[in-house]
Formats: sequence, structure tokens, C-alpha cells
Amino acid sequence: MALLRKINTKAKAEINTGFGTNTSAYGGRLMNKNGRTNIEKHGVGFLERISWYHTLLDLPLWKFLSILVFFFTFLNLIFALIYLAVGIQHLSGLDAVTTSDKFIEAYFFSAQTFTTVGYGRINPVGFVTSAISSLEALVGLLSFAIATGLFYGRFSKPEAFLRYSGNAIIAPYKDGAAFMFRVSPYKNTSLTDAEAKVTIGLFIEEDGVTRSEFFQAGLEYSTVNALTLSWTIVHPINEESPFYSFSAEDFAKAKGEIIVFVKAFDDMFSNEVVSRSSYVFGEIIVGAKFEPMYFRSPDHNKTILDLDKLNSYTTIDITSILPVSKNNVATA
Amino acid sequence: MALLRKINTKAKAEINTGFGTNTSAYGGRLMNKNGRTNIEKHGVGFLERISWYHTLLDLPLWKFLSILVFFFTFLNLIFALIYLAVGIQHLSGLDAVTTSDKFIEAYFFSAQTFTTVGYGRINPVGFVTSAISSLEALVGLLSFAIATGLFYGRFSKPEAFLRYSGNAIIAPYKDGAAFMFRVSPYKNTSLTDAEAKVTIGLFIEEDGVTRSEFFQAGLEYSTVNALTLSWTIVHPINEESPFYSFSAEDFAKAKGEIIVFVKAFDDMFSNEVVSRSSYVFGEIIVGAKFEPMYFRSPDHNKTILDLDKLNSYTTIDITSILPVSKNNVATA
Amino acid sequence: MALLRKINTKAKAEINTGFGTNTSAYGGRLMNKNGRTNIEKHGVGFLERISWYHTLLDLPLWKFLSILVFFFTFLNLIFALIYLAVGIQHLSGLDAVTTSDKFIEAYFFSAQTFTTVGYGRINPVGFVTSAISSLEALVGLLSFAIATGLFYGRFSKPEAFLRYSGNAIIAPYKDGAAFMFRVSPYKNTSLTDAEAKVTIGLFIEEDGVTRSEFFQAGLEYSTVNALTLSWTIVHPINEESPFYSFSAEDFAKAKGEIIVFVKAFDDMFSNEVVSRSSYVFGEIIVGAKFEPMYFRSPDHNKTILDLDKLNSYTTIDITSILPVSKNNVATA
Amino acid sequence: MALLRKINTKAKAEINTGFGTNTSAYGGRLMNKNGRTNIEKHGVGFLERISWYHTLLDLPLWKFLSILVFFFTFLNLIFALIYLAVGIQHLSGLDAVTTSDKFIEAYFFSAQTFTTVGYGRINPVGFVTSAISSLEALVGLLSFAIATGLFYGRFSKPEAFLRYSGNAIIAPYKDGAAFMFRVSPYKNTSLTDAEAKVTIGLFIEEDGVTRSEFFQAGLEYSTVNALTLSWTIVHPINEESPFYSFSAEDFAKAKGEIIVFVKAFDDMFSNEVVSRSSYVFGEIIVGAKFEPMYFRSPDHNKTILDLDKLNSYTTIDITSILPVSKNNVATA
Repeated sequence: MALLRKINTKAKAEINTGFGTNTSAYGGRLMNKNGRTNIEKHGVGFLERISWYHTLLDLPLWKFLSILVFFFTFLNLIFALIYLAVGIQHLSGLDAVTTSDKFIEAYFFSAQTFTTVGYGRINPVGFVTSAISSLEALVGLLSFAIATGLFYGRFSKPEAFLRYSGNAIIAPYKDGAAFMFRVSPYKNTSLTDAEAKVTIGLFIEEDGVTRSEFFQAGLEYSTVNALTLSWTIVHPINEESPFYSFSAEDFAKAKGEIIVFVKAFDDMFSNEVVSRSSYVFGEIIVGAKFEPMYFRSPDHNKTILDLDKLNSYTTIDITSILPVSKNNVATA
Repeated sequence: MALLRKINTKAKAEINTGFGTNTSAYGGRLMNKNGRTNIEKHGVGFLERISWYHTLLDLPLWKFLSILVFFFTFLNLIFALIYLAVGIQHLSGLDAVTTSDKFIEAYFFSAQTFTTVGYGRINPVGFVTSAISSLEALVGLLSFAIATGLFYGRFSKPEAFLRYSGNAIIAPYKDGAAFMFRVSPYKNTSLTDAEAKVTIGLFIEEDGVTRSEFFQAGLEYSTVNALTLSWTIVHPINEESPFYSFSAEDFAKAKGEIIVFVKAFDDMFSNEVVSRSSYVFGEIIVGAKFEPMYFRSPDHNKTILDLDKLNSYTTIDITSILPVSKNNVATA
Repeated sequence: MALLRKINTKAKAEINTGFGTNTSAYGGRLMNKNGRTNIEKHGVGFLERISWYHTLLDLPLWKFLSILVFFFTFLNLIFALIYLAVGIQHLSGLDAVTTSDKFIEAYFFSAQTFTTVGYGRINPVGFVTSAISSLEALVGLLSFAIATGLFYGRFSKPEAFLRYSGNAIIAPYKDGAAFMFRVSPYKNTSLTDAEAKVTIGLFIEEDGVTRSEFFQAGLEYSTVNALTLSWTIVHPINEESPFYSFSAEDFAKAKGEIIVFVKAFDDMFSNEVVSRSSYVFGEIIVGAKFEPMYFRSPDHNKTILDLDKLNSYTTIDITSILPVSKNNVATA
Repeated sequence: MALLRKINTKAKAEINTGFGTNTSAYGGRLMNKNGRTNIEKHGVGFLERISWYHTLLDLPLWKFLSILVFFFTFLNLIFALIYLAVGIQHLSGLDAVTTSDKFIEAYFFSAQTFTTVGYGRINPVGFVTSAISSLEALVGLLSFAIATGLFYGRFSKPEAFLRYSGNAIIAPYKDGAAFMFRVSPYKNTSLTDAEAKVTIGLFIEEDGVTRSEFFQAGLEYSTVNALTLSWTIVHPINEESPFYSFSAEDFAKAKGEIIVFVKAFDDMFSNEVVSRSSYVFGEIIVGAKFEPMYFRSPDHNKTILDLDKLNSYTTIDITSILPVSKNNVATA
């Protein structure tokens, strides 16, 4: 029996994922492990397609700092050339004799003006050079407004700091089985009112055409008051689950993606923080139990949360729990 | 039959648009294409009617920078005059001989103080000039707090960066037709929990009196989990739509405006962003289908979203779907 | 018949106003016209009772600036004294001869360091004075972080910029009457998703004891999509209103307060803004109609909102609409 | 009868506290009095477990300032060593003769550059030293972006400024009893739309195994429009309360924690603020009434809120109200 036939018809379709249903248009993963969507934009001008704010907030630190140093150097070079052009003699206090030394002194005078250090050994004399240097100080203050604003913005950007278990598992749950994964805050944050939303995407080939179907994954509970320890998010494989008739083989052969979205309130940021991730079927361990990851401290006064155990599980045989696959995908 | 009679009486009136119902008071469009309301405020003092924060955040960049340069120059001129008034001899280190040169040096001393560059060749001596220059440094720091705050505020202002299809279309939908338009994020943003609200405003002339009626446009679905690709917002023309009895001619002759409001959560801004737009009836193509705007990448690893195709549609004949207009507005 | 008896028993009590019900504890108005609650806190230490952030954000501008200038002067005086104490000879470049001149130069050296202007004519020599001045520069940068942060924070603080009609009115409404007032944004803001909440507080003397009763005022509609023109907030005096049996005399004699709370989303602030106000019974005009306050512009292209007309009303006789007061409060 | 048997089976379990149910893993209090959870994280690298933003925003002021001064000194030392390494002769204007004096001058030149004071007596000459000092000015501006951002961030961090009564009480309420505590804003804030959530956690030993059970505490009312005076949060001990069958002895012997979570909107911060606290059973006074804490001012124009009375109560005998404990825990 084809996998398509085995998708539980009572499962609640998720119609508004924002990913569309025309799977033939998709390539690869919808969402990467780090929560970014796997989409490239074309058309419109390149510059129009870029939000500098988003780009600069999102760059790795070394790239961000390189860009800062590049712009700092570039703008100083421009101003140094301007000072040379209007006449280096209008900079009093120069020690330089050769042209290259003069350029170097003009460059560093520019840097001292741009950063408003203004030692003053070199200083502008006359209207034109004074005017340019006062303009440069203004440009410097405005440039550093953006540079330092972004630098602090990167540092203080609300982030969820959540870590997901590398694998999702199919574990025994009540009378049947459940799809589970764990998430845990790994930094000294204090998250409240956390909410999870899980969407199951299945890519189905039938008669040579690939189609995607999205389903809401019903959760054991989808909110927690405080997200301080680990949270095992549980999708019970019951009559409303698209996995209701799935055998172990079906899980192994299915293609698609389970998309996870968690949001919570961080009271240090005083803001909502969001986190996304996804599991492909290859990352699901059929038949496993998560090991406990928090313990009482030796002095019995605290709870210890061991983050290294986030993905710790022991495999168990659950074939007796899952439906038997008489006609699996391969033989369909 | 007059258009008024053709408005579906089962359509759900939108009573709280904030635009009132006394159409005779209105002029032109309620909302411009860019989402701004077409309203002018009179009364109260002019200065009281202005929020400088809103004004300066909203100005085109060149106007904003011009205002900055103007204020910078203006304040330096004022302080230069003060330094001259209390006695230029209290500025040590001047090279100037003529009065105009002295004014120029006082001006640039002021600029060097205001920006806190403070080269120091020119520096204050004595109580009065020192006091004024220390006050100026304070004024400078406070002025730049506003200037740089606004400059960074403009740069980092949460914006939705959404683009709407230039036209709305009436397209086949299920057994009948639907009013549709498309919206797509055009920058490298990541929007979640997007929600759309569409209000249909019809301006009706009856017995020489114009009246406006607003209706909630029921949507196929009004939220998407992630707004990453394009989103076709669909108002099915069913029994609850004010357009239920509209023929193609009625759409052509109707006057009014379809007002669109979209909000979503941007996790880089960690804030809600909003976007508004509107379509007048002249912008509706009766009988068209949007062309797909996203594709699988050649290497099958990504999805490509082609923003240039946002307004791409092919016209089709849908007269057989729409009600026939026996008595259209013109013959009424 | 005492007023108490005339309060409609079907009116929905508002139990969670946060103002309590023990009226004997209250004095005067609960909420001032500007929306501030009329409460004074005692106990706890004075400094603990103060949030400097709230206080400094809320002060009139001239007081805020005075405090800034005071602290700037005060800290410079302290540092000037320290420079004198460790030996004025460690400041190179002084012109001063007399002690008072030396103090003045030390003071302005301090100011130049604190603002990081650092002209450099006067500059520190030797370990102790250099160390103090480098510490002062650090203190200056941190102090200006607070000062300029607050200055910009005051400038950019999300505010609703709403104006309320000076009077509330009792006007004809459908078959009966309604309590109405108007609110209008008076600056160039763009408010969406506005929501109003109105609470009616009645202070009742019975057997020499005063008691307060709070009621939710049902509104014709309590939200508007866009708050761009004026919004007339209407509480219909129907069977669920506490005013259902009120005659004109009862309104005149009643004591209490109608508390108004409006919130909306301002997309330039990207934040929710709130506004509060209140009406005492003396501010209610029994029998009036608001005059229109927006018009079509002469060129028919815009809507003009005339803010001067916010409180314009024409009085009308509505005694025939209100219940006759056989036994009013005075004769009870 | 064991306490376990006395927990009302009709009480609504709180399944999503985020604290798990495996009590054997816990140690001590779940939440400290100040609202912090009593959890320690292990595993992952130490640096990865730290959010510097959260840590630095949360440190006591003196520790935060010490860290600032330490980093300021440390970075200046590093740069001083670099200036020495590349040749102290490239710093013009030095008075120093001895090596240690040279190091001191290099250090203070660095400090003057780092803070952008730049007096200029000491100033860089030549390419290498000039380049290092211009880099240092850049590093200084970026470092102060973080330092001043955090300093202002600490000052302006949205906080609830709520104080809880030190004790919770069991007081007479309607026909029975209720669990109550008081909360009051103690600073000049203006909180609206406050909401409280109370969770009762009971730790039960049965057959030598400890188990935790969490219950939602139903509240008399869980929201207030304005949190301006004191708010007595009341959990009626009715048929839905886990305390329904508790005698005074049971309260004394019970182990567990009542966890309180309050959130509200502060319009000066324009943000939601949250506050948490908890009561252990030892902090519950069985049989008490809170004394009033607000009064009319002498001039009858204001309400006075006396914060010192937040925990003022008078004990009363309520044994006749509570169920008699035939078989209390000790005798079970």
C-alpha cells in the first residue's frame, strides 16, 4: 500500500503554512536545522532586496567587524584625499616632508577627526579645510551612530537560546506511541509563557507527481508556564495524527519535514523570543526513550539540568506498538 | 438595477473602520497606495499638530540629512556670534587678523567643541568663554543624542518590507470566482504569524446622495504561519461577499476602495510589523489568473522566489462564472 | 427616590477596576483629567519609592534640563576640587596665577575631560592627575549614556497623542439616548487597532455611608481598525446601562467619574500606545449633539479634520427621551 | 489520613508548569522568593551557557561597574604595551625619562585615545603608532557602545516594581475561607491590564516516594484594569481548590510551594512587565485578615497608599471555618 494511502485521513490539514502546496516547485529542505527557510529571492534590484539592518544584524561577528574596519578605512582614505586635494598646507602641525608621508598624516588627521579624538597636533587652518573637517566630524558621529547602534543591537538582540535534541524519537506513550523531541534553554535566561507549534510536512509521490501535504501536529500540551528545565514536546500518534497507520518501515521511507516553532517571553529582554527548527524523517529514531536530564543536586538544595544529555536516549523495541506494515512503500 | 441593489445584503458590514460613514465628507481616496490615509488636519496650533519624532522618522533621507546639517550650521553660527560678542581675545591660538577671519575661526572653534573633537589649537581662556564652550559641549552631546538616535532609529525602524501586486484580480475559485491579490516580502526578512484583514468600501450614489458602506471581506484564510514565499490573499465571492451579485460591468462601474492591512512578527526586529495598502476598482482585473512566482532551483536544493512576477497574470474569460448583468448601473 | 435605587440593577458590575470599593478611603477624583491616578504613596523609604527612570522621563523639559545642568556642574566641581587637592601643578598649560583662577581652570579642565572635548591646552601630567582624568572621562561617558539615553528616550517615548472632547454629552441615540464623548489623534500619527474601555464609577451616600460602585459601560463598538479621524465613543443608555432610569436631574446630582482607557498600535513607534482620561458628572452636558468635525477638502481630494471642533456641540432638548424624575435625589 | 488523600480530586491539575513532575529530581525550593528559579545548568561549555547580555544586565551595580573599570584598565594596559613595543619615541610630547614613567605616559595616552578625549599633548607620530591609535579609538567607540548601552539598559530595563506581602494568609471569605496574599506597586509607576496566575505545588511522600502535583489556583478575579493601589489576590478554598479538605494542621504540615506570576503593561516603559514570587507553606498564616492599607488624605483630595502596611494582618481564629482534621498527617 502506498504511503499516501497510509496518511490518516482524519489528520487535520495545516492549510496556512506559508510554504504553498505545489511541491514540484520546491527544492531540498523547506527549513534548515537552524530555523532559516531555504529560499532564494530573485528579481527586483539587488539593493532593494537587501535590508541592511537584517543583514548586518545577522552576519558572523568577524564579518561584521571586517565591514566596520573596511568602511572606517575607506572613509578616512576619501577624506585624506580631499585634504590633499584642497591643499595639505592647510593642515598645521605636520611633520611630513615626502608626499607619501603627507598622505599618511592627512589620513590619520582624518581618523582623529572621524573618531572625534582630535589630538590637535595636526589641526585645520583656513575656511575650506576647517569646513571639511567639521563636516567629517559630523559624518563620523552619524556613522558611529549606525556602527555602534548595530554593534550593541547585535549584542542585545532578543534571542531564544534554545537547543533542540538532535533527534526526534518515536517512543511508547500511554497505550500507543508518540513522536517526541526535547528542547531546553541552554543559557541563563528566564523564559515564560512558552508555546510550541509543530507542523508535519509529507512529500508524496503518486503517479510520478510529487505533492506536499501539511498537517497540524496535535501536542500533548502546547504551552508551558515557565521554560526553565527541558521540555519534551509530545505529539501523540493517535487517531488524529497523520502517522496513525505508519509502521516502522513507513517512517524510514517517508519523505518530508517536521517543522517546529517555539515562542516565549524573556523578561530580561522584556520581549517575545522565537525559535525554529525542523526534523527530516532521517533524524527520527523509531523506538527510543529520552533519558532524564535533570537531577537533584548533591546538597538537595537545587535542581541540576545537564545539557549534555539533551539528545541522550536508549533505543527500545516498539514494533509491537506500531501497526504492522503489510504492504510497505517499497512493495506498493 | 442600481449597484446599491446588487450589494449582497448578507455581507457582513464593517462598522468600525475608523473612516466614518458620512461619505459626503470625504474627498478622493481614503488610503493611498502606500498605505497612508488621505487626511489633512486643521485647527490646534501647527506646532502642536506635529510630532517631531514621527515627522523626522518619516522624512526622505536627504531631507533628514539637510535638516541635520542646517541645525549643525545654525547652532555653530549662534555660538560663533556669542564667542565674538564676549570677546574673541578669549580664544587663544587664533591665526586670524581680519574680522571675517576671526568669525570663521570662532565658527570652527564652535564646531570643534560641538562635536567634541576639540583639536585644541584654538581653545578657551578665562571664565566666560570657557563656561560658554563647556555649555556648548553639553548642548552638542545632547543634540547629537537626538540626531544620532533618530539616524539610527530611521535605520532600524521595524518595517514589513512587503510588496503588493499592482493589480487585484477576479479569478475562478472553486465553483465560482474570488477576489485575489498577492503580497510578498521582498527583503531578507523572516516573518511569522502573518495576519491579513481586508475591508471593502463601496461608495454609493442614490437619489443624488453619496454614501459609503464598508464590509468585512471574508478570506479563504487570514493567517499564515510563515510569510516567506508569496501569499495570495483570497476573498471568495460567495453568499457572504458583498460582490455576490456583481457582474463584470458592475466591477467596472463600482466606486470605492478595498483596504488591506497585514501584520506579522519579524524576529530580527523582535517586533510586530504592519503594512497597509488599498485597491480602487480601476485596479481590479476581472478575469485573470496569477502566474506562479516560485520555482525549484536548478540544483533542486532551494526554492527560488521571483519577485518580478508578483503582478504577473494571464487574463481569462470568466463571464460565464460571474452573474449576468441584466440591468447594469448605466441602464439603471 | 434615592439615586441608589435608580441605578439599573441589570448593569454589569466592574469588579476589577483596581480602585477598590471602599469609597470611604478615597479623596477627590480617582483619575485626573490627564489620566494620572490621584494617589499618593507613603511608607517604604523615599528613594525606594522612586523609579528614577519613570520620574526623569516624566518631568517637564525645563526641569529635566535643569537637573542635567546641575549634575554636570556639580560633578565638575567635585573633580575640580580633586584636581586642586592632588596638586594643581600636575595640570600643565595653566595660565592662572591666583587661586580662584586656578580653581576656574581646574573646573574647565574637568568639563573638557567630562565631555571628552579635551582641547589639550590644559592637560594632566604625572600618574595621579592622569589617573583621575582618565577616570573622569570614563565617568563622563557613563553619565552621558544615562543623560543622552533619557533625553532621546523622552523624545521618542511612545505616546498616544489623543485629545478628548472637554465634555461628554447625553445625546439622542436610536430610540433612546446615549452617553458620548469624542477622541481624536491630533498629531501626524497613524493608529490602528484602537480599543476603548469605559468604566462608570458612582459614589453613593446612603445612611451616611459613601460607597463606590463601578460598572462596565457597554459601548456601541469598542474597537476601530484605524483611528485616523475623530472617534465618537458611544455608550447606549439601554437596559444594561447603569443610567437606564436616570433623569436629567439625576445626572446633575450624581457624583462619580467615568473613566476612559484607550489603547492602539502606532506603527511609527512600532508599539502599543495608551491614553487615559476621565469625566466627572459636572462635565456631562445632558442634551447635546456633537457637530461634524471632518469635511471634504475644497479640491475634493482629501478629507479635512478640524481639531478645533472636537468639543463643538449644539444643545438640544432631550427631556422627552430621558425618564421623568418623579422623586429626584433632592427630594428623596 | 495521609495528606495525599486530602487533596481535592476535583482540583484542576496544572500540567504545564515547566517544572516537570518527577519530584525526586528536585532539590529545595523551585522558585526563590525573588522569583528566580532554583536551577543550575551543567554540560555544554561554560561560555556557551552564559548569555553575557543577561548576566551583565542582572549583576549588582557595583559588580557591573567593577567589570567596566577592569576592562577599561585591562585594554589600556594592552595598548600601552603595544605602544611601548612599537617604540615609545613615536609618541611625541612625552615628559617621561624613566621606563616606568614612559609606560605610565603610554598608558594614559592610551586612555585618552580610548575615551576619545585626546588632549593631544602626547600624540602619535609615524605610520605604525598612528595606525594603532586610530584603531584604538575605533575599539574604544565600539567598547563604549556596549558599556554605555548596557549601563543605560540596566537603568531603563522594564521592571514591575511590585512588592508582595511577606506572608500569605488563610482568611474567612464568603461562607468559607480563602488563600490570600497582597501585591502592590511601590514606585511611581502606572500599571494597567494586570494579570495574575497562581500555581499550587504540593510535594507528596507516599510509600517512601516523593511526587509533586501542581494545581491551577482559581482566583476570585485574575485581572485588574489598573494596578495602582494594593491588590489582594484571592484563591477561594471552594470545591475546586486542592485545599478543600485541608485542616489547619494540614496547612502546617504540607510541603510545597505556591508560585505567583503577575504581568502588567507599564505605559512609561511602553512594555509588558512581569514579576514572580512564591510562598512556601511555612509562610502561610492560617487565620488572619489583612488590615487596610489605603486611606483618604487629610484634605480629602487624594488617596494615600501606605506601603508599610503591605504585610499587616490581624490573626483571627478560623478553625470553625476549616474542616476538622480527624486524622492528620502525623497520625496517618
